[in-house]
Amino acid sequence: MGELTASAIVIGNEILSGKVADSNSHFLATELRSVGVALQRVVVVPDDLAMIGQEVNACRAAYDLVFTSGGVGPTHDDITIEGIAGALGRAVVRHPDIEEKLRGFYGDKINDARLKMAEVPDGAELITDVSLNFPTIKVENIYILPGIPEIFQQKVARLKTRFTGIPYQLKVIYTSAGEGTIAEFLNDTMREFPDLMLGSYPKIGHPEYTVKVTLESKDGPYVARAFAYLLGVLPDGSVVKTEE
Amino acid sequence: MGELTASAIVIGNEILSGKVADSNSHFLATELRSVGVALQRVVVVPDDLAMIGQEVNACRAAYDLVFTSGGVGPTHDDITIEGIAGALGRAVVRHPDIEEKLRGFYGDKINDARLKMAEVPDGAELITDVSLNFPTIKVENIYILPGIPEIFQQKVARLKTRFTGIPYQLKVIYTSAGEGTIAEFLNDTMREFPDLMLGSYPKIGHPEYTVKVTLESKDGPYVARAFAYLLGVLPDGSVVKTEE
Repeated sequence: MGELTASAIVIGNEILSGKVADSNSHFLATELRSVGVALQRVVVVPDDLAMIGQEVNACRAAYDLVFTSGGVGPTHDDITIEGIAGALGRAVVRHPDIEEKLRGFYGDKINDARLKMAEVPDGAELITDVSLNFPTIKVENIYILPGIPEIFQQKVARLKTRFTGIPYQLKVIYTSAGEGTIAEFLNDTMREFPDLMLGSYPKIGHPEYTVKVTLESKDGPYVARAFAYLLGVLPDGSVVKTEE
Repeated sequence: MGELTASAIVIGNEILSGKVADSNSHFLATELRSVGVALQRVVVVPDDLAMIGQEVNACRAAYDLVFTSGGVGPTHDDITIEGIAGALGRAVVRHPDIEEKLRGFYGDKINDARLKMAEVPDGAELITDVSLNFPTIKVENIYILPGIPEIFQQKVARLKTRFTGIPYQLKVIYTSAGEGTIAEFLNDTMREFPDLMLGSYPKIGHPEYTVKVTLESKDGPYVARAFAYLLGVLPDGSVVKTEE
């Protein structure tokens, strides 16, 4: 079975100008990982139709799934729907189901700004089973999510149940020896286990360890053998602890 | 004077798999903003030569400055130098100044893995005035920075003094009214001040305010007039506080 791949497009001047730190892409990465989906690209673009459109077209062609974050509210800087529609060559239309929901909620306080939130790329699908107050808009392979972290997280936590892949098996070795010392043993391990995902992450000033080494694969026995192999070749006394 | 534009390429499987949250791009965004440089793109790519190379070539053509984060250590997954060199059509060479420094530091503990850290794209420049222990490698318009946050931050904090642009002037209005209520007044403001950077950021569950509105420009009097205008058109009682 092929592995599902994914990309994330985070839209917002506030992130590029440093006013807000994006936490949505990290949350998405963690959630997708837990269901075996490989997130392969995250990109942050400004509130700019051309930039959004260009990235949408690049990502939807290259990855199975595309998730966008941000730019779907009622104000002038919320241009994600228009950007995606433009990229797909679709019109922006008001979705009658969302319009009805908004009119029911706002009553006589409904206005053009609020009705903007009913706009979708023509032909978009509404996912209602993952929505709390508001459906999630999907068009082609693109899931359009709001930037507000609380809502983004709620939606992703439910959406991920749609993508039931084989989860990754992770084992971790913490070493007291530095990367310059263990590099050759990591190289040996990669030669023996070429399909292993092997990461090496030095940490400055940690009281317990110097490098965190991660071993991963969707093949449990394979990662177990690689783990045993690496533990066998690392210098005596260099392993502080392990996690399986 | 034209404005300097910048892009950031964050390299690392650990970020895409959710093991580590990238904090470097947010730090870079904030620091560049403080010296008036416009960060216009952040992208996270895996430890993959083709992906790194493709993004390097896209960014170096489109932006004045490119900053990379990660993938410059001694282990098998540190392939940023090779990726950048490949994109530029340059060979990877050992820089004699860095090699000397490494040999001096490690003495008879020097090995191939450690010497890998002397590798640079052919023709790269070493920036020593911003380095603490280790020079910063620059090639063409690309600044190659390590992923370890402590070192990344130290280097960026010093590098930014090279880019002395006109800083942005920021004013903030916090409203109790929601985006659906204030959207029309934001639109009015954009019509009157088309060059204004105007952001609108709803916050869920904050005890003090509902929306944070940011007004920015490099032209101080312009943003001051826009600020006064927006305060004048917002409904009575909707402004909770302001920051100038």
